[in-house]
Amino acid sequence: MRRIDLTSAGFLLLEKRETPMHVGGVNLFTLPDGADEQEFLTALRTQLRDCRDFRKPFGDYVVTGKTGLYWEKDEHIDMDYHVRHSALPSPGRYRELFSLASRLHTTLLDRTRPLWEMHIIEGLQDRQFAVYSKIHHAAIDGVGAMHITQAMCTEEPSAPLGYAPYSQEAYEAYKQERFGGATSTAAPNKRDMRNVLEALKQQYDSGMNLATAMRRFGLAFVGRSGNLAVPWHNVPKTSINTRVSGARRFVAQTFAFERVKNICKSMDATVNDVVLAMCAGALRRYLLSRDELPRHSLKAMAPVSLREEGDVDSSNAVGFITADMATNIYDPEKRLRTIQQSMRAGKDLLRELSPAEAALFMQLTQLPALLTSVLGMGSKFPAFSTVVSNVPGPRKPLYWNGARLDGMYPASIVFDGFAMNITLVSYHDQLDFGIVACRRSMPQIQRIIDHLEDALVELELVAGVSGPGRRGSDSRKTTRAPAKAKTLTKAKTKAKTKAKTKPKAKPAARKTAVKPKLAKK
Amino acid sequence: MRRIDLTSAGFLLLEKRETPMHVGGVNLFTLPDGADEQEFLTALRTQLRDCRDFRKPFGDYVVTGKTGLYWEKDEHIDMDYHVRHSALPSPGRYRELFSLASRLHTTLLDRTRPLWEMHIIEGLQDRQFAVYSKIHHAAIDGVGAMHITQAMCTEEPSAPLGYAPYSQEAYEAYKQERFGGATSTAAPNKRDMRNVLEALKQQYDSGMNLATAMRRFGLAFVGRSGNLAVPWHNVPKTSINTRVSGARRFVAQTFAFERVKNICKSMDATVNDVVLAMCAGALRRYLLSRDELPRHSLKAMAPVSLREEGDVDSSNAVGFITADMATNIYDPEKRLRTIQQSMRAGKDLLRELSPAEAALFMQLTQLPALLTSVLGMGSKFPAFSTVVSNVPGPRKPLYWNGARLDGMYPASIVFDGFAMNITLVSYHDQLDFGIVACRRSMPQIQRIIDHLEDALVELELVAGVSGPGRRGSDSRKTTRAPAKAKTLTKAKTKAKTKAKTKPKAKPAARKTAVKPKLAKK
Repeated sequence: MRRIDLTSAGFLLLEKRETPMHVGGVNLFTLPDGADEQEFLTALRTQLRDCRDFRKPFGDYVVTGKTGLYWEKDEHIDMDYHVRHSALPSPGRYRELFSLASRLHTTLLDRTRPLWEMHIIEGLQDRQFAVYSKIHHAAIDGVGAMHITQAMCTEEPSAPLGYAPYSQEAYEAYKQERFGGATSTAAPNKRDMRNVLEALKQQYDSGMNLATAMRRFGLAFVGRSGNLAVPWHNVPKTSINTRVSGARRFVAQTFAFERVKNICKSMDATVNDVVLAMCAGALRRYLLSRDELPRHSLKAMAPVSLREEGDVDSSNAVGFITADMATNIYDPEKRLRTIQQSMRAGKDLLRELSPAEAALFMQLTQLPALLTSVLGMGSKFPAFSTVVSNVPGPRKPLYWNGARLDGMYPASIVFDGFAMNITLVSYHDQLDFGIVACRRSMPQIQRIIDHLEDALVELELVAGVSGPGRRGSDSRKTTRAPAKAKTLTKAKTKAKTKAKTKPKAKPAARKTAVKPKLAKK
Repeated sequence: MRRIDLTSAGFLLLEKRETPMHVGGVNLFTLPDGADEQEFLTALRTQLRDCRDFRKPFGDYVVTGKTGLYWEKDEHIDMDYHVRHSALPSPGRYRELFSLASRLHTTLLDRTRPLWEMHIIEGLQDRQFAVYSKIHHAAIDGVGAMHITQAMCTEEPSAPLGYAPYSQEAYEAYKQERFGGATSTAAPNKRDMRNVLEALKQQYDSGMNLATAMRRFGLAFVGRSGNLAVPWHNVPKTSINTRVSGARRFVAQTFAFERVKNICKSMDATVNDVVLAMCAGALRRYLLSRDELPRHSLKAMAPVSLREEGDVDSSNAVGFITADMATNIYDPEKRLRTIQQSMRAGKDLLRELSPAEAALFMQLTQLPALLTSVLGMGSKFPAFSTVVSNVPGPRKPLYWNGARLDGMYPASIVFDGFAMNITLVSYHDQLDFGIVACRRSMPQIQRIIDHLEDALVELELVAGVSGPGRRGSDSRKTTRAPAKAKTLTKAKTKAKTKAKTKPKAKPAARKTAVKPKLAKK
């Protein structure tokens, strides 16, 4: 039995039928040249199911003890339950994939078992297949999930069948390769501090920095601290900030990383600033189209990693900055600058703290916002408007048993008061967005994808740069049109069947084709 | 707003994450000759999604009022959510179908929406497709579900596209055709009585019959009432009577009705008696194989309909007889006779009561057993050992938009203390069994299917009759063998793909082929 730390336990204790607390996402792959789909996927399934030695806590289930929650080993783990094989109905477009992922992301994990599921999904067009995975937030955070995908893949296209992604072997090998086997040297007081009682005790020991931070935070609340945005302060109510139902919608999209980087260079902004500005522009458009743009700006909760380099062990090492999304500002450049200033102010605040202090600070200031939300008051007292989470991913193309990883689209959590979550991963030369929303509060979430493109084009215009593969300066008009953003326009309905019956008839030219994007304009 | 009656509300109030309270099942169809699978299934999906006028409560969701639970109309019903299109991975055997149905039956319905889902499932072999449906027990009982399948189908193979099965039109048309439009004339006191308070008040008015029944029930409890079996009395504990986890396994099988009828004739027993004896034989074998056959006999809860002919309206009109399963008796004939006597005693008791009194009696005597179970004490104080429910179904072959209904396999509820539920439907000339079990307590539920066949053969031997299509008197040995009971042995792995690419290449001989059975020996 191992004690579950407080932040992780919170995700378990506050989980409700309407607010499942799992994270995950869709990884998209292309079959290796010449591989038979059935043989290949069956081999993957067998590999995944044969795992017997799990990294923590993938072989454990939750038990309630006298003094809290504990992980205990599941001696009869039922791998057929955890590793599933699914299929898309014809014609097997991304639309069908998103529809399935939406359903899979809706249902609760079984609490009497290790808190994860993995679904191999066949039936996509163009020799692609997908893996949807679902892991309880008590077991992992976004960066941790990224480590798992990275650990299961390799940069070698022709590497042999590796370890199951959640195996102890994969974990050890990855840590060895990536960090030379140096385990995280977090001081015990950093980990233990996550217990609230100890945290409060610590409060008196952590000296001046924390006191300063608290004071700054308080000043921001009463409006006298420059650009620092704080939760609850002037957070408007919109249709995004409602109670949520149990059902989810999931959509995803890839954007070329270079387009964002070009804006960064030209505007002297960070990737995070530009990504937040994209989201802000998309949100502004969405709210305008529904005629509910509020007078006050939306605030976004932007999680930042408190994980130290080399720490691949912590389940949850994450803090939050409150970003002012400047949705009430018409001018896109001014909007970007406002966002940038609020992010700088938030980071300055965290930078003055040690990682341990930062973790404590988060608990004292921002976690209550999550609590309010989960306790069902989030829709009455929104602490933020939405969540925009930018997770750094692998910088080189990855392969899983020879199958190229075409994209990794995260799927995160929504709850009362935050009916939408935008999470993105930087992978190689692309930015992969995964958006999860409450199916009832935001029935037309796919529009956000179009709005994101519009907002990116707008920023490119402001920055005086032009995105690769776009048609020129009139693109702002043309990108508005395609309602079929999620369908592969070049794909024929029969492509799936053909690929199945004649896997070798397709030319190997595929690998040199343009990188797969979920929306091809 | 319409008040939800007490029994129905019970299913809502007592539902837990580990014990979802929905019923449903898998309907298996064969595509009409010459129909293109994609076109046909797309048309079905459209028909189902286009429904706007629902029979009650299929357009309603549950709201909590001051004095109980109510149905309220969902003004923004999201039909894409309720009507889903799924697919099986290759090779598309029944194994893959059961695997998908097990998962779909595991997850909770969304309480903020009308409490049903319907899944069109493609990817089966031999031009079959399936529909899995899932309806909250608060909205329907087994007989009601049967009425819905019957209302959506017709005996005419070439009838045009009909109404959606849960539409008000289908409901009206069905009632008109079946019962000449005569609505149920249940006295108001019968319905209202389901409220516990009123039921208790009624108790003093319902006179002698009920008092007699209660006395007989009491005598049985202390062992002085002949063959009447009662809940809790000497109910042994087995691995079936444990706490359940949230995950389910579903398996199904068709048996020829004639085989059971032949035994009935020869042994002077009812269909229900013989079916219970089949289940008892299967349970005895299962427990023997696990070396845990208890000294006392298992008791089965056998639901009986309290629905009056012509009543297609009541959500829940169901009572229960406690059947002595005689699992401790070696001799199959004696076992059948013991079961028969306990069923007769139970029916005698109910027969003396008016339907209203019977409903009341059930509430006072048997519903507490359900309560114990749902409150989590079922595994400590099992009231019954299992549930065996025999639902009379349509007597002629049915078609849905021209697709032949090949089988209807019910999927019901398990909860703490009852880790397995056997429900069967008599359809035309077959008995379709659907078995649901807790995935953790009964990991090898597919064995029950084999044991059922063995028990049937045993009864045939005792009765001196021989089942049609079987190989003779040595079948008792041969039926033991096939571990692949759930796979179509004649089907090739590539059949699915072929059927997809060349739907018209298949000969029309299919219709004259033998009736599809889930296990072909």
